[in-house]
Amino acid sequence: MWGQMKKHNIYFDNAATTPPFSAPETSFVFGNASSPHSLGITAERFLNSARKEMAKIFSCRENEIIFTSGGTESNNLALLGFALANKRQNIRIFSAPWEHPSVLEPIRFANELGFAEAIILSDFNKIISHEVCLVSLSQVSHETGDIFNVSEIAATLKKKNPKIIIHVDGVQGFCKESLDFANIDMYSFSGHKIHGASGVGGLFVRNGIRLLPILHGGGQENGIRAGTENICGILQTVSAAAQLHVFRDENYLRVSAIKSEIAELKHLLPDVFENSLTKETSPYILSLSFIGIKGETLVHLLSEKGIYVSMGAACRSRKKQKSLLETMGFSKERAESAVRFSFSHLNTVEEASIVKEIIIDCVSQMRRVLGRR
Amino acid sequence: MWGQMKKHNIYFDNAATTPPFSAPETSFVFGNASSPHSLGITAERFLNSARKEMAKIFSCRENEIIFTSGGTESNNLALLGFALANKRQNIRIFSAPWEHPSVLEPIRFANELGFAEAIILSDFNKIISHEVCLVSLSQVSHETGDIFNVSEIAATLKKKNPKIIIHVDGVQGFCKESLDFANIDMYSFSGHKIHGASGVGGLFVRNGIRLLPILHGGGQENGIRAGTENICGILQTVSAAAQLHVFRDENYLRVSAIKSEIAELKHLLPDVFENSLTKETSPYILSLSFIGIKGETLVHLLSEKGIYVSMGAACRSRKKQKSLLETMGFSKERAESAVRFSFSHLNTVEEASIVKEIIIDCVSQMRRVLGRR
Repeated sequence: MWGQMKKHNIYFDNAATTPPFSAPETSFVFGNASSPHSLGITAERFLNSARKEMAKIFSCRENEIIFTSGGTESNNLALLGFALANKRQNIRIFSAPWEHPSVLEPIRFANELGFAEAIILSDFNKIISHEVCLVSLSQVSHETGDIFNVSEIAATLKKKNPKIIIHVDGVQGFCKESLDFANIDMYSFSGHKIHGASGVGGLFVRNGIRLLPILHGGGQENGIRAGTENICGILQTVSAAAQLHVFRDENYLRVSAIKSEIAELKHLLPDVFENSLTKETSPYILSLSFIGIKGETLVHLLSEKGIYVSMGAACRSRKKQKSLLETMGFSKERAESAVRFSFSHLNTVEEASIVKEIIIDCVSQMRRVLGRR
Repeated sequence: MWGQMKKHNIYFDNAATTPPFSAPETSFVFGNASSPHSLGITAERFLNSARKEMAKIFSCRENEIIFTSGGTESNNLALLGFALANKRQNIRIFSAPWEHPSVLEPIRFANELGFAEAIILSDFNKIISHEVCLVSLSQVSHETGDIFNVSEIAATLKKKNPKIIIHVDGVQGFCKESLDFANIDMYSFSGHKIHGASGVGGLFVRNGIRLLPILHGGGQENGIRAGTENICGILQTVSAAAQLHVFRDENYLRVSAIKSEIAELKHLLPDVFENSLTKETSPYILSLSFIGIKGETLVHLLSEKGIYVSMGAACRSRKKQKSLLETMGFSKERAESAVRFSFSHLNTVEEASIVKEIIIDCVSQMRRVLGRR
């Protein structure tokens, strides 16, 4: 009976986490970068060279890169760190309701503490503020892959008021989408979303932007982020970022073809819709709704066959709160039937074809059982 | 000329960081523990089993273990998290002036924000407080290896006032010293100090103690610490902790012999003093002052020979502030001439003998040059 079921191993959940690249040869560095002996000094040198490499990717200065424990900490540092540094000015922080919890929760918390006023709105064009304020927006939606044109939004806002500070949550865009950093003041990235290390992330902070630390202690990372540096993890992450950065255009094309293959389902099956707010979406993420079929059911069915996709962002997917797609304005029906496919350049079009065919079978069968066409 | 210099490779700076054990076979787990498919569920299962294993070491419940990015974050979470959760009660936080910066800095910060009153004092017996207050003390001094009898201090304080909450910075004691947790409410540990992973640590938080998160987001770690869990790092750390825990007594004896060997320098050379506040010190740490010789000079000289020791705690060692030993009441002369040796069960008595002989030569020569006996 089970003999019929071929077990695949196709991972299309790269927006949740990616398989780490094997560590570069230099990446086993041992020693505490604050230690005074030669092992410590060597560790510090490796850390410095990693920072230099990362600064090259950002075309920024080395002291503008702060390594953290991940995307969540980077977002917290940018938002809470800024609110703390400016708490006497009663600043406002603007963000969109569909941002990641690691953006919305620190803003809510800063508001609760009375350090900043949180303003959550869908249309950043409505922001008119003559005070110092912080606008936090994502480069690519982790739910739908929507590309928010952050450089343009930033330029428009700064034209209105040069005092506006722009933070970009780049976790889903880093080393995947190109970005003009001219008007971006802070940018968060995460290691494990780009084949780097788990537990490593970072924040670009433009010189002149004052943050207070959220982790206090030994004064590492230029006094902004205390804690012994995870040098092996940082080296592995920087090496992964450098690889993705160099091959960005090539990977983009490769992944676009994979996404197109899956997106054909819109035409091959009735009542399949792509969920996106904007015209432009990242080739790395595709959200499709298979009307009448619960996303969860399809995800589990595919998982049994060794095909790994998600209902949506991992960080919300087991919670009972209103779905992100509903927050974005999609119907409950669309939200409940949504499946997120997220790709890596390590995936292939052949994998996408297999998944496409299996989904056609599954969805058709399930709809027959459910009495839908 | 250089042929005379034999290059050793003896690492006696284990209080700064330890060589990581190789990862257990199960430790390559791939997937985001929040993902709904079978890879995510497997990742979550591994995370749960790691938490269970760690809870066994603490003889506590699984939900009392919070994994963090390291000792610094654990201390920040315990202190700032408690201050934030109790900010309306205007609590007091007591600590000693010789604690680690990752304890003192969050307390200073909570004080600055007006969330808690920071009281730094040397003698915890002076604490008489009828309000809720938090006392933070280390199990073992990272500078001198002094063992502070935290169970006894905790018991005495709780007898005076059962509302006193006790936080222990266990970074240098975890899996090395035994501890009765009966009166301990929170306990911080770090992975890379026990041959675990860099960028991994944790906090035991007794049920009933309310903390607010300092990293906000996806609700991981029971809502107390957001951020995708670094599962491979956690598994490696828990496996290291479990090994050290099982062999604790054996390792203790082994390391005691190593320390004794180095401590003989007190008798073999004139004007060599052990720096400690208490009668009982950890066998894992030895602070010796070689009067008349700068600790820094000796550290660099030994480093050239492939022997790695430290002037003192790594996190302070490159800063210009008052040395920790002076803060502890030792003279400037003692502080400036101090060298910290810190051991692991991976070290050997043979290594200690080599280091002892080399130090005898170095110190005697240097003193002759400097015109001291």
